[in-house]
Amino acid sequence: MTYELYYWPTIQGRGEFVRLALEEAGAPYMDVARTKDGVDAMMKWLEAPGASYAPPFLKAGDLIIGQTTNILLFLGARHDLAPQDEAGRLRTNQLQLTIADVVSEAHDTHHPIGMGQYYEDQKPESKRRAKEFRAERIPKYFRYFERALEGNRWLVGDRLTYADLSLFQLVEGLRYAFPRTMKKLEKDYPSIVDLHDRVQHRPNIAAYLKSERRIDFNEDGIFRHYPELEGAA
Amino acid sequence: MTYELYYWPTIQGRGEFVRLALEEAGAPYMDVARTKDGVDAMMKWLEAPGASYAPPFLKAGDLIIGQTTNILLFLGARHDLAPQDEAGRLRTNQLQLTIADVVSEAHDTHHPIGMGQYYEDQKPESKRRAKEFRAERIPKYFRYFERALEGNRWLVGDRLTYADLSLFQLVEGLRYAFPRTMKKLEKDYPSIVDLHDRVQHRPNIAAYLKSERRIDFNEDGIFRHYPELEGAA
Repeated sequence: MTYELYYWPTIQGRGEFVRLALEEAGAPYMDVARTKDGVDAMMKWLEAPGASYAPPFLKAGDLIIGQTTNILLFLGARHDLAPQDEAGRLRTNQLQLTIADVVSEAHDTHHPIGMGQYYEDQKPESKRRAKEFRAERIPKYFRYFERALEGNRWLVGDRLTYADLSLFQLVEGLRYAFPRTMKKLEKDYPSIVDLHDRVQHRPNIAAYLKSERRIDFNEDGIFRHYPELEGAA
Repeated sequence: MTYELYYWPTIQGRGEFVRLALEEAGAPYMDVARTKDGVDAMMKWLEAPGASYAPPFLKAGDLIIGQTTNILLFLGARHDLAPQDEAGRLRTNQLQLTIADVVSEAHDTHHPIGMGQYYEDQKPESKRRAKEFRAERIPKYFRYFERALEGNRWLVGDRLTYADLSLFQLVEGLRYAFPRTMKKLEKDYPSIVDLHDRVQHRPNIAAYLKSERRIDFNEDGIFRHYPELEGAA
């Protein structure tokens, strides 16, 4: 069976966490909205009974699975990207949800006042929000993930899970959006950086990152590089 | 086994979604932080290996389960508050995650600039954010949940799930925070209101709501009633 992934075609966004899991698993999938008329198809599925509230969603045969962490819960079980036992499955889901919280906060650094207004119309507010995010929030989350990696090669158990792929992607996104901040911070979180590097060099991930399937970061996505949000004039 | 729930003792907050599931299930639990020295115990567990990033978390024997939606995933399976089959379980989790998204946005109406600053220091920004939340976001989410209830008594399948309990709580919270808005909106979402009322009158829930275990809404929680965020002068 070929999975059908539905997500905005020009950004990494939340869909990227799903793409990484599919790529690592070597699972056959179509990134539907990047094909001809694919966005129309996505919009139609959003109106179907049992639809997801928003992209990304995954069609797996008759199943429509919405919400990023929920898709990963499904793929983790199907493709051995999470432990089989209850404790391990729950722990992986918990870490993924925590990563999703950081991702939401990263998004809010450029849209603190809301999705309905342009970044340009909420720039002073974005600067305030980004300042706290850089100074307080990233370190707090990173301390947590660093501690979760204490004495472990992987976040959960002794093998890679989808939470590791997502932590890799979080580091990638933050490096893009806040390069100066990350340059200063990263030395304090050697286990996170080491995990990032090991994920990056896994054969399937390395091949994916070099391929055209990997969309470049850009200022329509969740992680956006606006120099003024790092304190540049 | 008696569950140990750990959450801030003076607010409903995210912990309330867990409390409602435990109460509906009639599961024995201790709300630990509301007991003597309970907050200290909570803080200690947050430093333990395998800890949650933040409250709420649930201790179930040796398991420490963090993240609200993850706790509900666990309780749903254990206490028959979610379907047994994969499709139903995933659908319940997806809806719960979507409810969690609204809850986060409700929180951000009074803290758009960040957690590190008082509401009083982000009031003008809160007004802008709340305006969009009331006018655009609540209706968009409610349309989605109303449609999910089309022709169904419950959100998933033909029996109550924890997602129904959470939708009840979402309505409760929004009524408290934005009473004028909800008064105007609710007539457009009869299925949501009907579900809310049916949940409210379930014996275990009704008994809980009348008990001292139910904390009143207040301005330290997620749903806060600030008249100025509803457009009052």
